[in-house]
This record gives sequence, C-alpha cells and structure tokens, in this order.
Amino acid sequence: MKVNLPGQTILLPSPVLIVGTYDGDGKPNMMNAAWGGIVCSNPPCISVSMREATLSFHNIKKSEAFTVNIPSEKYLVEADYVGIVSGKDCNKFEDAKLTPKKSQLVNAPLVLEFPYALECKLIKQVELGSHTMFIGQIIGMVADDDVLTPNQLPDIEKVRPLLFGSFGNMAYYSIGDNLGKAFSAGLKLKK
Amino acid sequence: MKVNLPGQTILLPSPVLIVGTYDGDGKPNMMNAAWGGIVCSNPPCISVSMREATLSFHNIKKSEAFTVNIPSEKYLVEADYVGIVSGKDCNKFEDAKLTPKKSQLVNAPLVLEFPYALECKLIKQVELGSHTMFIGQIIGMVADDDVLTPNQLPDIEKVRPLLFGSFGNMAYYSIGDNLGKAFSAGLKLKK
Repeated sequence: MKVNLPGQTILLPSPVLIVGTYDGDGKPNMMNAAWGGIVCSNPPCISVSMREATLSFHNIKKSEAFTVNIPSEKYLVEADYVGIVSGKDCNKFEDAKLTPKKSQLVNAPLVLEFPYALECKLIKQVELGSHTMFIGQIIGMVADDDVLTPNQLPDIEKVRPLLFGSFGNMAYYSIGDNLGKAFSAGLKLKK
Repeated sequence: MKVNLPGQTILLPSPVLIVGTYDGDGKPNMMNAAWGGIVCSNPPCISVSMREATLSFHNIKKSEAFTVNIPSEKYLVEADYVGIVSGKDCNKFEDAKLTPKKSQLVNAPLVLEFPYALECKLIKQVELGSHTMFIGQIIGMVADDDVLTPNQLPDIEKVRPLLFGSFGNMAYYSIGDNLGKAFSAGLKLKK
C-alpha cells in the first residue's frame, strides 16, 4: 500500500563526502557532508551544501577551493567523528590522526589516508535556505595506485566507500554485490 | 603510492535516480540520472542534472515539476533500460512494463512499482556547461508501507536501492553490511 509522507531529504543511499578546506591561517579542516553529488560532466563539477554555521562554509568562501575525499569503510569512526565536532573547537585532523596534505592544484588539503579525492575550484554558489550549495569544478584527482582499474580510474570494489542510510536508520553501510553491468543489463528490453 | 589524475566525475557511490516527468501532451517519461543529490535541508531540496538533448530536460522546463524514484535492486534491468533509450523514440513505461501514476502534489508521474519517490517542484535552474542542474523542492514523498521504519521513514535495508559504481567498472551494486551508527561511532574520538 502506498503512503503519502511529508517532503524530506531522504535519498538512498547518500554519499559520505569528507570535504577538506583551509582557513585563512592555513589550518586544515574536514567536514562530513551527505548533501552533495556530481552536477555536470563538462566541465566536471560536484556540489557540496553547507550551513553558514560551519567553519567549512567560511573557509570555502575565502579560499574558493575544496577537496572531496572518499573514505574507505575502515575509516568509519574517523569519518563519523568529522561530522560530530566543529573545526572551530578543535583540530579534526589531529584528533582523528589523519594527515592533511596540500593539493598541488587547489588551496585545500587532501586526507592522505583516504583512497582518493577530487580537487575542486569553486565556480558557483547558490543560496537555497538553510544551506548554500558550493559548486566546484573538479580539476584533478589524487588516488592510491592500488585502488585503480587498469584504465586508471577508482574501482569501487577496491575503494570500498561508505554509504549513509539517511534518517530512516542513521547507519553507515558498505557496498554489497556487483549486480550487473550498466548500459548493458537493460538492452534486453530494447525493441 | 599516490597518483595524480585528470579531474573526472567519479563519485563513489553514485545514486540511481529515476526521474519522472510529463511532456506537454501528458505522456510520461523516465530518465536514469546519476548526477544528483540532496542540496538543502530547509526547504528540503534535491538536484538532478541533465543535458539539453534529453526529453526530460524539456519536460521539466515546461512542467516545472519532477519526481525522483528510487528503484529497488530487483528493478535493475528496468532502471538500466531507462538510461539506454530516449523517450523521444519510445514509451519507456510501456517497454519496461512499469506503471506511471500521477503525483497528487506535482505535475509528474510516480513509478508505481518502485518502493519510494520524492515529489519535487522546480525552484531553480543552474546552467553549468554540458548539463543544467534542476533544483526541486521536495514537497512530498510516496512510499510503500512495507519499506518504512516504525517512525515512517524509508529504511535502506527494506528499500534495497541500487548504487552505480561509476566509470571505473560501470556496474550496479547492492547495499552491503550495516557497519555502524552515524553520529555515534565517532564519539570515541571526542576529547
């Protein structure tokens, strides 16, 4: 039976994006953002949305740059910690024993221990209400060589990213089974 | 060892969003979009990005409404089919044997067989290059009662959504194990 419910921000799954930024003094910070996704192929762009109350919001406004780091499942505790505390009160990199490494392309730190990251230059800001959407052009990627496919792309089975199950049960999940090929499995329905 | 790569639209995982729209004559269409995500909490908003070459692009421009339907893993073939063909050439609902049902809140069709959907009113368009981002305010949700938690929210373990593994291996995945509680697992690092 179908049930009508209020409009809510429940996208299944939501990603776990660890956004890296510097403040005006070069102190690195990380934020755990579930509100984001790819928004354009050419130029390649990603969006991350933040409240003005966050340190990362102001860091991006100043630096016009950020990284999007994808944690592997073994960094669940660290990724969750990043979403619990504010960088205004502590140094999240030090507390989580993670290593900031300056991107060679943008003025933002990479999380060295995570398998890959997108390096983004801010190109647009869209104010929507509680959140401002920051759109970054992805001008480079940095990846561990052992998570790449033969054609040099991050392989989800080697990256082992975390998923967020949203507000239904507020839990993180691993990826499961490979169920079939994209742009292929559906061909059998083509007339 | 870290490898520097060109900037590419690789977010792991990417969602599988089946966007429902009507054309000017009331013919329903579906599009398979991996470029999208939640962008604001209040008002609740989601973005989906499309190329001008798609029928859905023009349908949204006219109707100023769309639905975002989350397919369960048993609809992998149908979801993939939706991404292979164009609604300009066929009726995807008929070919995939899926049922369009008009939303009670917006001028767009729901996919009746899928476990839940977001009903969206277009509030903003952002042209980025190859893609235009359509931002919809989520004004309602429709869900099967058997995928809900006791607090009436879609439960990822019952919805069993599909994930897209992006360009690395171009495959769909199921969700895997519940690895831990969000806003909880990280507390052990708090000083």
